[in-house]
Amino acid sequence: MTDKRPVVIDLKFAREAVSEALKGAFPGREVIDLADSAHAGRDLSEAAYAVVWKPDPSLFSRAPGLKLLFSGGAGVDHLLSLPGLPDLPIIRFVDRSLTDRMSEWVVLNCLYHLRNMPLYQRQQREKIWHEVIRQPEACDVTVGVMGLGVLGLDAVRKLKVMGFDVVGWSRRLKKIDGIETFDEDHIDDFLARTDILVGLLPLTAETRGLYDSSLFAKLRQKGALGRPVFLNAGRGGSQVEADVIAALEKGVLGGASLDVFEKEPLLPESPLWNMDNVVITPHAAAASDVSVLFSHVEAQLTRYERGEELQHVVDRWSGY
Amino acid sequence: MTDKRPVVIDLKFAREAVSEALKGAFPGREVIDLADSAHAGRDLSEAAYAVVWKPDPSLFSRAPGLKLLFSGGAGVDHLLSLPGLPDLPIIRFVDRSLTDRMSEWVVLNCLYHLRNMPLYQRQQREKIWHEVIRQPEACDVTVGVMGLGVLGLDAVRKLKVMGFDVVGWSRRLKKIDGIETFDEDHIDDFLARTDILVGLLPLTAETRGLYDSSLFAKLRQKGALGRPVFLNAGRGGSQVEADVIAALEKGVLGGASLDVFEKEPLLPESPLWNMDNVVITPHAAAASDVSVLFSHVEAQLTRYERGEELQHVVDRWSGY
Repeated sequence: MTDKRPVVIDLKFAREAVSEALKGAFPGREVIDLADSAHAGRDLSEAAYAVVWKPDPSLFSRAPGLKLLFSGGAGVDHLLSLPGLPDLPIIRFVDRSLTDRMSEWVVLNCLYHLRNMPLYQRQQREKIWHEVIRQPEACDVTVGVMGLGVLGLDAVRKLKVMGFDVVGWSRRLKKIDGIETFDEDHIDDFLARTDILVGLLPLTAETRGLYDSSLFAKLRQKGALGRPVFLNAGRGGSQVEADVIAALEKGVLGGASLDVFEKEPLLPESPLWNMDNVVITPHAAAASDVSVLFSHVEAQLTRYERGEELQHVVDRWSGY
Repeated sequence: MTDKRPVVIDLKFAREAVSEALKGAFPGREVIDLADSAHAGRDLSEAAYAVVWKPDPSLFSRAPGLKLLFSGGAGVDHLLSLPGLPDLPIIRFVDRSLTDRMSEWVVLNCLYHLRNMPLYQRQQREKIWHEVIRQPEACDVTVGVMGLGVLGLDAVRKLKVMGFDVVGWSRRLKKIDGIETFDEDHIDDFLARTDILVGLLPLTAETRGLYDSSLFAKLRQKGALGRPVFLNAGRGGSQVEADVIAALEKGVLGGASLDVFEKEPLLPESPLWNMDNVVITPHAAAASDVSVLFSHVEAQLTRYERGEELQHVVDRWSGY
């Protein structure tokens, strides 16, 4: 049996939740939490593993003995862009809870727009009792999910159960039972079918700025909802926010639900805050449960130290 | 083959949608639409069937030859309370679309409260970017569905897929695979388990005023949501609205979504309109699609005229 080598923590989120979760985590293993001032100038040369979210790039020179890097969330763009990133396996955070929460957000927001909630909530504020007569149901509406990884597949399945017509898109064609899917060469066909676009893509060179005016213009016009709706719970860097705003103002889009933004927190001057057909959540669609993150890391460390194959390793070439 | 006998229509809703849907409905059969002034003083003695929603009670004396009564919606309380109601089979409106729409509303509203949307929407209005740290997920929350007919069963199934823990209640015990169910003798056990109460009950002598202060006090306190939430998409007469308001004001309830009210339209002076943890929809959770209603009626008439057994016949004794 190998000795358990130290793990470095550099998670730039939910400070208190991290400290709390660290109390019971990594039994028998030294934990160096860089947010703890007691560890400020610590020698990290013994550290073999790091669990990070937007880490300080100096980590890599301070800890030259790292063997594995764990992302604190599903995305890894915060890591791949770092200067001096060593060539180590990077393991993404995949867990049932994160997946389920993302699907909650996606289904909630698809139903919210399907069921005219922006209008009904405006009417409620004005004390107006008025039923929308033409109420399409889920099967009249096609939801197009971009990104068919663990999160996308779960969302697709649950949207289907709720009765939506669902289509899927991924760069490389992915076959899913009972769902029509499209690949990068057929994105226009995919968009022309889509009434509610759900963005669950990672941020890569290919997806940066993808959701722009020209893409919105290709979505199905005059579908059951009248105008298409845009949901993004992937990465803010994939949307051209000025184009989202313009599309909403011009009526190219009939509504939006956004959990991610080009710059977070969303700037107070953004007109998105005031649009009543827009739902804004503060990058909270699928927050990582930190204690689950640490169990996931521990499970992978155990596999690694036993010489077993690692799971959820990122393909650096494709960026996710 | 029998001659196709006339059908009388007395539907006190969606006037335009009814006229529109009648155009293609009931081929080869005379249709007497009482909302059409041309039919005002019409002799109805030949009419064998009536499709009604809150009909004028004089219908029964004017049309003594009626053989079947069709309700224009899932509920039949609007009919059973009528003076002079003849002893005829009453057929309720059951269709996939109505069922799916009701489940859309139920799942939407359960997710809305689960995912802190009242808070996030308040924050959006105030341009506040703040993530709720303690975010329970669906499996941490028990949804208790009251009423396990066609609508309740479909809602239960979809809530389960979304990850909720689900329990069910009906007057007489109903066994459902994988769901714990309770009957009228065990309502307190059911309520003590429930974080989100979903009311899908018909209005009967037993359910009138059922949702009152004493019932709300029995719901699980200090569950994953902090305080219980009440949803009603059954009938307004089942709720004591003053008690709903008091429970919300006192914090016995943490939120509510209401589609039905004691008096509809909801009176402008109701404090419910202004509560930002309350969602109000104008009896629109599962509006009947009138053209689907007429196809359903036509299908049952065909069965009847062929001497086949009728479906969805109401049990008058139990009131639904």
